[in-house]
Amino acid sequence: MQRIRTSEVSAHAGRRVRLAGWLHGRRQLGRVSFLLLRDAAGITQVVLGEPTVIEQVAELLPETVLEVEGLIVRADQAPGGFELHEPTVCVLSAPAEAPPIELRRPALKEQLPTILDHAPVALRHPRSQAIFRIAAATLGGFRSALDAQGFIEIQTPKIVGSATEGGSSVFGVDYFGRPAYLAQSPQLYKQIMVGVFERVYETGPVFRAEPHDTARHLSEYVSLDAELGFIEDHFTVMSFARDAVAGMVAGVGANAAEPLELLGAELPEVRGQIPSVDFEEAQRMIERATGERVVGEPDLAPAHERWLGDWARGEHRSDFLFVTGFPMAKRPFYTYPDPERPGFSRSFDLLFRGLELTTGGQRLHRYEDYLAAIAARGERPEPYEGYLQAFRHGMPPHGGFAIGLERFVSRLVGAANIRETTLFPRDRTRLSP
Amino acid sequence: MQRIRTSEVSAHAGRRVRLAGWLHGRRQLGRVSFLLLRDAAGITQVVLGEPTVIEQVAELLPETVLEVEGLIVRADQAPGGFELHEPTVCVLSAPAEAPPIELRRPALKEQLPTILDHAPVALRHPRSQAIFRIAAATLGGFRSALDAQGFIEIQTPKIVGSATEGGSSVFGVDYFGRPAYLAQSPQLYKQIMVGVFERVYETGPVFRAEPHDTARHLSEYVSLDAELGFIEDHFTVMSFARDAVAGMVAGVGANAAEPLELLGAELPEVRGQIPSVDFEEAQRMIERATGERVVGEPDLAPAHERWLGDWARGEHRSDFLFVTGFPMAKRPFYTYPDPERPGFSRSFDLLFRGLELTTGGQRLHRYEDYLAAIAARGERPEPYEGYLQAFRHGMPPHGGFAIGLERFVSRLVGAANIRETTLFPRDRTRLSP
Repeated sequence: MQRIRTSEVSAHAGRRVRLAGWLHGRRQLGRVSFLLLRDAAGITQVVLGEPTVIEQVAELLPETVLEVEGLIVRADQAPGGFELHEPTVCVLSAPAEAPPIELRRPALKEQLPTILDHAPVALRHPRSQAIFRIAAATLGGFRSALDAQGFIEIQTPKIVGSATEGGSSVFGVDYFGRPAYLAQSPQLYKQIMVGVFERVYETGPVFRAEPHDTARHLSEYVSLDAELGFIEDHFTVMSFARDAVAGMVAGVGANAAEPLELLGAELPEVRGQIPSVDFEEAQRMIERATGERVVGEPDLAPAHERWLGDWARGEHRSDFLFVTGFPMAKRPFYTYPDPERPGFSRSFDLLFRGLELTTGGQRLHRYEDYLAAIAARGERPEPYEGYLQAFRHGMPPHGGFAIGLERFVSRLVGAANIRETTLFPRDRTRLSP
Repeated sequence: MQRIRTSEVSAHAGRRVRLAGWLHGRRQLGRVSFLLLRDAAGITQVVLGEPTVIEQVAELLPETVLEVEGLIVRADQAPGGFELHEPTVCVLSAPAEAPPIELRRPALKEQLPTILDHAPVALRHPRSQAIFRIAAATLGGFRSALDAQGFIEIQTPKIVGSATEGGSSVFGVDYFGRPAYLAQSPQLYKQIMVGVFERVYETGPVFRAEPHDTARHLSEYVSLDAELGFIEDHFTVMSFARDAVAGMVAGVGANAAEPLELLGAELPEVRGQIPSVDFEEAQRMIERATGERVVGEPDLAPAHERWLGDWARGEHRSDFLFVTGFPMAKRPFYTYPDPERPGFSRSFDLLFRGLELTTGGQRLHRYEDYLAAIAARGERPEPYEGYLQAFRHGMPPHGGFAIGLERFVSRLVGAANIRETTLFPRDRTRLSP
């Protein structure tokens, strides 16, 4: 008999079927015993009648892998409205011991470090599954949106020869006895590739050795990067960043609506044009509202981002807000300065519910400008040789953006800690599982 | 005026348009001067008439970024059948110097090391572009095929705490002062994730520190990994590997037919069932045909793979061939032994035109079997702790496979060296650009 999934039982009422999955839990209601069978699609309740089967099941450890054959019966009181009767139960794979965390609870009650230590089992919980189904749908949506705009997907190296982007915050690699580093982002490579394909994107891991220990930083995360040429200025880039985010939201709506509902999360609306505020104007608003002195600061603090998130919600009824024109001081060396406002840049951040989701902007494109920018950092051009080749030989005005996948999912599902939205998180102290 | 792409000119005959791109080349035919303008979509020939424009263009370096406005005219002798007349030419971005390699030739004539040293410019050549468009289409096709079968895309960590998979052939990372390693594959994590989603895939970088210096090995490459649960044996896995490869081929057919044609490459046919031969039987055939003694060897040499590739083509008219049932000796510790043939395994390789493209098979799924397999390697179970959790708490029979993206593309386009199909290759000596 062909196996069906628990999500398909409603189509098989009155017929015998075969299910397979994990022993998620057992329960006793009066004199009736139930078994909950979990597969990747959901959970089906199995009613145990025969004393021999009751006895057989009573001896099984939670998470035993089972095949169950039986009759599908409509049962309004059962989860999903159907249950399986007259089961025969066959053990496919027996666990060695019961899991250290209780998967059958509606939500895991263990503390986050315990959950992360036991990720290989904890991730089986339906709420954890839901988070990573949303992540997969987000990724798919990002790619679809950019594919539709003629972007080409690229893969750039993660082992790089010089720590050009990050100074002390890069991980060192022993590369056949030579020093090498893990790429902090595909930034330099995606810019080079604008010279080839005009529009490119990459979805892949990036590595940050900053010794942060916060609820929103990871040492390794998934970056959704895009870069495009022949732009007017950073507003062109913002329009594509908007489309990418709209694609991500649409991807979740199309392919992860149930997981989203399970988590009680709400899909944001992405307007045709996301509201936008100038950096200095944003600082003035925060100053007026809070009395705090912020004008003149080179960046937004997390509290200011939260304030702006609330403001965008109240003023524009938007979960998203662009902040544009950040000071050059805190932006990377390849940032394009605002020709009309010395000290400020053609850059932006995109806030999602008060959290920085995306950083982007226009980049320098002239070779001489790069030589000057590198010299201004007190550096030599040699470590940038490959990167500089692109600019030495003709690059159009261009820009791009990067979106942290885990940050997006985290904000979308309202996770308290970004580690909840990372399968096997890496941070200053955590390197396993 | 809105910019159009060079691929769109035929739809604008008789109208004035704006193009933008790179000065790909110039040529003189009798008294007429031409400019070739390249954008990401192709090349359009621009006829220069006005002496001032001829003079202006004569001074430009190759790879100057231009905007060109003019009239689209049907011209049968022009590449693509249309050309642009009465141009006005505006320089968007001037290079600092002419490129060290000649992009306007039909094929680059420089040696591979020179091309790789100048990748940021060399990749702009239409034939290079074609290769990486094919790679992008391949990736998209792989994902579509597995999405359609209910696989969930995952992202697993590339920095790992123990070198459990590879011994000496892993790259070491300085992780906040602790030793860590770059993942050689997502193998252990994708197996863990079968316990969560039953069917998973990942497309991402993997890292191999083997000091190979061959035309088919890289230190960093893109691995297309899949793993699935509730299988019968390795033949179930082979059927999904077949579907994944068929998806890759279909992706190229749908989204990179022109690049394929430019390279003169032919799309293979993927049968509903790919022919398959047992490892020992394959060895006997090779021995009979070549006189060489191969029966008893634990693996296939590249020459034997090539022989089998020719045999599959001749005997089955197939570009693909499965070889099944490799000896346990050369397979990894998690390989499922053939219960009926001691010393042999439930594993397979998939050859594509005589080159190993994919390795896969059924894996062990019982906790005790893993403890025994690890002990048999003379190792302690502690470094495998996270991995072993999954098996300790119930895992179904499962298996999977991994496909090297660059190997597939390399074989598809007939590249002599796998580095031609890698944007910025990493090998024992090459770490830049």
